[in-house]
Amino acid sequence: MAWYQKEFSLEPKLRGFHLVTSEIVKNVPEIKKISIGVAYIFIKHTSASLTINENADPTVRLDLESYFNKTVPENSPFYKHNTEGPDDMPAHIKSVIVGNSLTIPITGGRLNLGTWQGIYLCEHRNYGGARRIVVTVTGEE
Amino acid sequence: MAWYQKEFSLEPKLRGFHLVTSEIVKNVPEIKKISIGVAYIFIKHTSASLTINENADPTVRLDLESYFNKTVPENSPFYKHNTEGPDDMPAHIKSVIVGNSLTIPITGGRLNLGTWQGIYLCEHRNYGGARRIVVTVTGEE
Amino acid sequence: MAWYQKEFSLEPKLRGFHLVTSEIVKNVPEIKKISIGVAYIFIKHTSASLTINENADPTVRLDLESYFNKTVPENSPFYKHNTEGPDDMPAHIKSVIVGNSLTIPITGGRLNLGTWQGIYLCEHRNYGGARRIVVTVTGEE
Repeated sequence: MAWYQKEFSLEPKLRGFHLVTSEIVKNVPEIKKISIGVAYIFIKHTSASLTINENADPTVRLDLESYFNKTVPENSPFYKHNTEGPDDMPAHIKSVIVGNSLTIPITGGRLNLGTWQGIYLCEHRNYGGARRIVVTVTGEE
Repeated sequence: MAWYQKEFSLEPKLRGFHLVTSEIVKNVPEIKKISIGVAYIFIKHTSASLTINENADPTVRLDLESYFNKTVPENSPFYKHNTEGPDDMPAHIKSVIVGNSLTIPITGGRLNLGTWQGIYLCEHRNYGGARRIVVTVTGEE
Repeated sequence: MAWYQKEFSLEPKLRGFHLVTSEIVKNVPEIKKISIGVAYIFIKHTSASLTINENADPTVRLDLESYFNKTVPENSPFYKHNTEGPDDMPAHIKSVIVGNSLTIPITGGRLNLGTWQGIYLCEHRNYGGARRIVVTVTGEE
């Protein structure tokens, strides 16, 4: 039975949906020690989010960005929180819809993802900067 | 302190929202051994999702399907990822909105769900087939 | 290695998004005993939800309520589940979108939230009443 926890920053990303599986896994080599367990991935921000989706065709990521921009428009007349720019309140809303943490099973020293699954950082700000991540890993060694 | 992990397939479902609490629980009888703990339920796909909602009136599931079809339409002109059919990109978007994992407390050998809560498989493809699930259970025995 | 679990009710809230970090933390003083671990926060309802977002400017919470009311309207003509009032089916949909549980890392006896992050109870009913919460805490002491 073991617990490991790592806090680190992801490289700054452009606004959009980004595949970050390998960038995250390389920061947590302790995953290899766990035979059965889970990894919890948490983002310490309110205008960027985490999800899991297709790791192959990059147009999935483009279409997600297009969809969320359309369904959560900038400059909606009812926004009261608008002092930080037109991308700010939409970023908060997108974060609430997408979510700020992931729980992924670990099996035999690896994240037990489906063949087509990858971890996405969803950067909802135009200039979000480096995003802070906490990964907690626990399970049987 | 115990860890159990089971990977299995759910029976293929029609497109829509489906109550699967008993289909999942019967695959993980080890839940009964846990006095205090959690169950993590993870779906290894990017076009189907998991949520928790009302376990009683089936019209809730019908209305959820109607709502998501309306808010995530097929054939949006901006979709670039459309080689796998008009239901494919909407399925990816719906999965991102709904989410691909659940964390449920275990108390006294049972999932500690509210009276009206049930686990839903949300099948977003027209022909999604059998969906692969990983349930990880941990806690004090 | 420890497990703690507390089940309690939050004070009834008006329809809307509410900051409840301190109301939750005061019910689980055991968080202070954990050096590395996680807290799982679960709501036992299908018409209220949990999320994490900005803990500072209260207009973020107002704008979230406005956005969700617009994107999940009452009285949509396709709703079949409408015997419990016009706020009922929208509340189920909002709960599915926002989610019913949170997983937060614990580091050094504290929830390891970002500077601007707070826990929100999202009350989607007009008269939701006291909402039942289960917090499970585990980790190394």
